[in-house]
Amino acid sequence: MTISEIAKLAGVSSAAVSRYLNDGSLSQEKRQRIERVIRETKYRPSEYARTMRTKKSNRIGVLVPQIDSESVPKILSGISERMDQKNYHVLLMNSNLSLEKEIGILETFEQSQVDGLIFVASVLTKRHEKALEHMGVPVVILGQKSEKYPCIYHDDEGAACAMMEELLKSGCRRPAYIGVDRRDKAAGENRYRGACHALEKSGLHMDEVPYRVAAFSAQGGYQAMTEMLADGKRPDGVLCATDMIAAGVLSCLSERGITVPGEMKVAGMGHGAIADLLCPRLTTVHYHYHTSGREAADLLLDLMEKKRRQQESRMLKYEVIRQKTI
Amino acid sequence: MTISEIAKLAGVSSAAVSRYLNDGSLSQEKRQRIERVIRETKYRPSEYARTMRTKKSNRIGVLVPQIDSESVPKILSGISERMDQKNYHVLLMNSNLSLEKEIGILETFEQSQVDGLIFVASVLTKRHEKALEHMGVPVVILGQKSEKYPCIYHDDEGAACAMMEELLKSGCRRPAYIGVDRRDKAAGENRYRGACHALEKSGLHMDEVPYRVAAFSAQGGYQAMTEMLADGKRPDGVLCATDMIAAGVLSCLSERGITVPGEMKVAGMGHGAIADLLCPRLTTVHYHYHTSGREAADLLLDLMEKKRRQQESRMLKYEVIRQKTI
Repeated sequence: MTISEIAKLAGVSSAAVSRYLNDGSLSQEKRQRIERVIRETKYRPSEYARTMRTKKSNRIGVLVPQIDSESVPKILSGISERMDQKNYHVLLMNSNLSLEKEIGILETFEQSQVDGLIFVASVLTKRHEKALEHMGVPVVILGQKSEKYPCIYHDDEGAACAMMEELLKSGCRRPAYIGVDRRDKAAGENRYRGACHALEKSGLHMDEVPYRVAAFSAQGGYQAMTEMLADGKRPDGVLCATDMIAAGVLSCLSERGITVPGEMKVAGMGHGAIADLLCPRLTTVHYHYHTSGREAADLLLDLMEKKRRQQESRMLKYEVIRQKTI
Repeated sequence: MTISEIAKLAGVSSAAVSRYLNDGSLSQEKRQRIERVIRETKYRPSEYARTMRTKKSNRIGVLVPQIDSESVPKILSGISERMDQKNYHVLLMNSNLSLEKEIGILETFEQSQVDGLIFVASVLTKRHEKALEHMGVPVVILGQKSEKYPCIYHDDEGAACAMMEELLKSGCRRPAYIGVDRRDKAAGENRYRGACHALEKSGLHMDEVPYRVAAFSAQGGYQAMTEMLADGKRPDGVLCATDMIAAGVLSCLSERGITVPGEMKVAGMGHGAIADLLCPRLTTVHYHYHTSGREAADLLLDLMEKKRRQQESRMLKYEVIRQKTI
């Protein structure tokens, strides 16, 4: 059923039906004729027509850096759980770790006509913030701390500090750290700082400690550990910025017959599914990824319904999971 | 800039501007006045107005059974890679393994105004097919074979048969099978049939072989193996319908000091990231999940652009990955 078909049945012009649907001015008589046709034909205006009228699409955008990672699917399941309950649809955008693409998506974002955006950020640059300034809808940042935008983030510094302290407490005397690119503020910079902080409390300094930057993968961890062992100053414990990196480290050590935790202690961060399946089971830090998705969804829903102030942000807690590798 | 603001500037009614944007009849003079205002104000009709006019949203729907699984994130990355290149947006819908919700999503699907749908199906019932009949847009089924709809699916039967044959060839004399719910046609029924087929070729029958149905998880595999061991008739090899189930089996065996592959051979299916991180590395079958997403996207793009016939379907190949557990 289209507007012009309704118009024909009601004996009025299409413009009159449009005015009716958009609450425009209309004679009492035409209004009644249109109402009768709509009632009798059970016509429901399309989602688009409704959106144009109410300026509400019941869609939110979610921009993620990489769909097939350990954390993003859990975050998405938390977001979709909540948005589903509220009858919002999720428009998914994936930058596939391309910063250029991410900025591009943000810049052209207004064209996708959503009521709000959750930005699962791996890096948050000045260019991102500039692109975000032009959004006409509420935005929630997930996974990175922002001074300018409401955000849900993890205590990366605290978690890395706690995990490094566990390593030292368990008797590790020559600790090492395998981190990720520090341009990633949460997993790169903040975890690095947490590790530094724990070392300093023990009278050590990152400069004196074996340190490598790895890719976000088991391959990255394998390679970093290989390099570290080639260096000659073999550590007796290593904190890895992610569980996948730790998985690569374990596989490298296993191939060389270096026992864990006997000859080398290993700790990861993230508590992915693999942590509990590795052998030995990986000591790691649990982040509440599913919860972070749900919390970001709740915050965005409140902002869209104007129930909360823009500035609200929340840091989620972590949990040390002590298993068999330290 | 809204329609009524343009109308005011052009000195015409809003209805006239609507008619102009919708290619309705309009006097030459009014048309020129509206055109001038639109040119001068650089007005661009919103996506919604454009959609109502062109009936094209440049959005596709993707319905998945569970976002945070081994396969779905890879499938989504394949879909988004392709849709991105073609400037389509992905509207993500997650049924979270609820069949009722899945049917509901399909039934109300037309309201989300997309140009096509990729349905990543775990189960494909008559009710699903009935709901699909009412779609006004092209549909591609991913992961299950359908006689009625174009689909991209994996050779589950062939893969399970090949893997069970590998197990038997490697010297396994008392094989076992841990499958999943057979209402799932691809991973349940077809892998079960493939396993049966390989057993029969060796003069065995599934009825004589230890067999369990497990949940799609490491916990499920752990529990099924525990039950199997309690049964007394200990197998010397077990094919698991998924890698996660195999991971649970390995962890159960490791806790009981049963060596792999010495005392028991283990094989998985799916070649998830964990397969290469388990200890020992898991022998498994590789499915091309990312490729299946890309292929489904290509097929849907062709259907939306009417380049292919509806009936086209494709079965993707598998690859046996021989590692350390058999």
